[in-house]
Amino acid sequence: MTDDSKYRIHFDELEKFIKDVLMAKGVEEPDAARCAKVLIQADKQGMDTHGIQRLKTIYCDRIDCGQLNTKTVFDIVKETETTAVVDGHNGMGHSIAMQAMQLAIDKAKKHGMGMVVVRNGTHYGIAGYYPQMAAQQGCIGFSGCNARPSVCPCWSVEPKLGTNPLVFAFPSDEGFPFCLDCATSIVQRGKIEMYAREGKKCQPGWVCDRSGKVLSEPGPMLEAFQKGTAACYPLGGYGEEMGGHKGYGYACDVEILSSALSGANFLSQCGGLRDGKKVPIELGQFFMAINIESFRPLADFEKQVGDIARELRAAAKAPGATRIYTPGEKEHETFLERSKKGVFIPEVTRSEMEKLRADCKLDTKFPWDN
Amino acid sequence: MTDDSKYRIHFDELEKFIKDVLMAKGVEEPDAARCAKVLIQADKQGMDTHGIQRLKTIYCDRIDCGQLNTKTVFDIVKETETTAVVDGHNGMGHSIAMQAMQLAIDKAKKHGMGMVVVRNGTHYGIAGYYPQMAAQQGCIGFSGCNARPSVCPCWSVEPKLGTNPLVFAFPSDEGFPFCLDCATSIVQRGKIEMYAREGKKCQPGWVCDRSGKVLSEPGPMLEAFQKGTAACYPLGGYGEEMGGHKGYGYACDVEILSSALSGANFLSQCGGLRDGKKVPIELGQFFMAINIESFRPLADFEKQVGDIARELRAAAKAPGATRIYTPGEKEHETFLERSKKGVFIPEVTRSEMEKLRADCKLDTKFPWDN
Repeated sequence: MTDDSKYRIHFDELEKFIKDVLMAKGVEEPDAARCAKVLIQADKQGMDTHGIQRLKTIYCDRIDCGQLNTKTVFDIVKETETTAVVDGHNGMGHSIAMQAMQLAIDKAKKHGMGMVVVRNGTHYGIAGYYPQMAAQQGCIGFSGCNARPSVCPCWSVEPKLGTNPLVFAFPSDEGFPFCLDCATSIVQRGKIEMYAREGKKCQPGWVCDRSGKVLSEPGPMLEAFQKGTAACYPLGGYGEEMGGHKGYGYACDVEILSSALSGANFLSQCGGLRDGKKVPIELGQFFMAINIESFRPLADFEKQVGDIARELRAAAKAPGATRIYTPGEKEHETFLERSKKGVFIPEVTRSEMEKLRADCKLDTKFPWDN
Repeated sequence: MTDDSKYRIHFDELEKFIKDVLMAKGVEEPDAARCAKVLIQADKQGMDTHGIQRLKTIYCDRIDCGQLNTKTVFDIVKETETTAVVDGHNGMGHSIAMQAMQLAIDKAKKHGMGMVVVRNGTHYGIAGYYPQMAAQQGCIGFSGCNARPSVCPCWSVEPKLGTNPLVFAFPSDEGFPFCLDCATSIVQRGKIEMYAREGKKCQPGWVCDRSGKVLSEPGPMLEAFQKGTAACYPLGGYGEEMGGHKGYGYACDVEILSSALSGANFLSQCGGLRDGKKVPIELGQFFMAINIESFRPLADFEKQVGDIARELRAAAKAPGATRIYTPGEKEHETFLERSKKGVFIPEVTRSEMEKLRADCKLDTKFPWDN
């Protein structure tokens, strides 16, 4: 095995670099700090497609081309004791989202429940960050967002829905939240990009082209996505036999929760293009918190969640299966491992980081320098 | 085509029969009326596995063997402005659930949001009934419940989770709610029973036995369920390649929302058996309402939901596909058709209805009498 330790970077250094880059791009300090916190959390938990690997391609590039405002204003346009509507004005998505979830949590702590919706929001990183904020504060957290069209409705071949995550987080007595953080499609583009980098074939049944042909080579798949002629199938796959109408329905639920309460863009409006020119993507998001103590002592709730996790893990295994995981468990184990070893940075990301360091005139030292 | 009109029965007659049977079994009038309303709704919307076909096998048989209390007490054990915990004492599930959802709606109308959880609840029929109550009253509705173990965790072969529906309903400007009402597994047992009656083979990949073998003959499948040696796969199927960990995760979310806030039974505790004897099944349920006007004028919300539905239906169709539906649309069309024609009652259900009429000494006339 090769020694990859010089390509690993510790959490704090990586977080500081992300923050420094964003500040150099014009993002204000508190907003840059929030964005860095969410991005590094993806790297901490092994959700590699949503952390440092996107700093340049999603956030910096969008700032550079004017799709993303560095000036972030958390603008509450309507508010009641348990609810709020926020206009994000296309500012930094993570910062708006963190503030929105904290507002929902504060309302829940006072009134039992809280829900905050955002319009003109922008890409907010891993959806799971926000429900986990709630779980750390004694609440059930629930969040989702719409996204650029990449998923087809059941019986369609046209990308209409986003990958629309639907994410709950629950505190447990195990020291990490019970949390499934994923798209409502079978896969999302990040996974296909990963397969392309690794030279792997994709499972047939993930993605189709406009003629309905199922694709499996990641290269042509990504090209077709670029042209808007490929679509991810919703969870459950093509048609109804394996439940494709269910994944489609969950994606719709997220589309509505994300957009219809706030008047945010929906479906094809989220494409980020107008007359062939890039414009802000203007997404919708929702953040809900439920105060557990309003129902039951927190410790009792946490024990029950832990008991559920432990019973699930003890279920009879399928032949060849070595272990049954519960949602959030793999992410927690990755976190423990990377806390010691740091985050491995692949070559293409290292070049991006070096380029950002130069562009932003930072004096950051990377472990692989020299 | 044969004339089946004499096997069709109109909504009001069928609803009255259900109510009369339950009252003859000892259920009090308001509770029997609520149960009948939910059961007939399944028949109205074409969810045939959850209406009259279950009156005998699920509800009357459980009353007869003491698993279900005919005396229904809606017992609020803890309450705040937005939340409540209800003990259902194994009374009639639909009645408890309707009252719980109405309480959540009332709280939402006053405070923006409401959530009511139930412990010692019993089978409440179609999950979609309750969110649709909210949608009819200007709210987003959200409900789910746990159920007898029939679904295996990802990488397992042991039924641990219930079919755990996760159901939202949204009012729309189209005159019927946008609502996906379904299990978080690929299929539920009712569908397999239907295939068995129709002599059809099941799709491989829905169900496995304890050795991990995928079953496809509905007969042996149902026998294996009876013995507890079959399990439905979660939405996404076996393993992680097609997203089985996602369906599994959603089922877990429902298990926790349904049980951990109220201290209800969970997983194997929901089996309804103790020392080989039938005992109350004692489920957990949750009911949430979100008042739309707290965020935005209701008409604007409804128009946006309608616009989303209309854009989805207009998406490019897959080769061979004739139409793209949105959640709740097929159910609404069935409702319109059956409003005129009535509900077709299959032979086995006709015999059950005749037997119930005799047992309960009712003088109901069925259209197929003589």
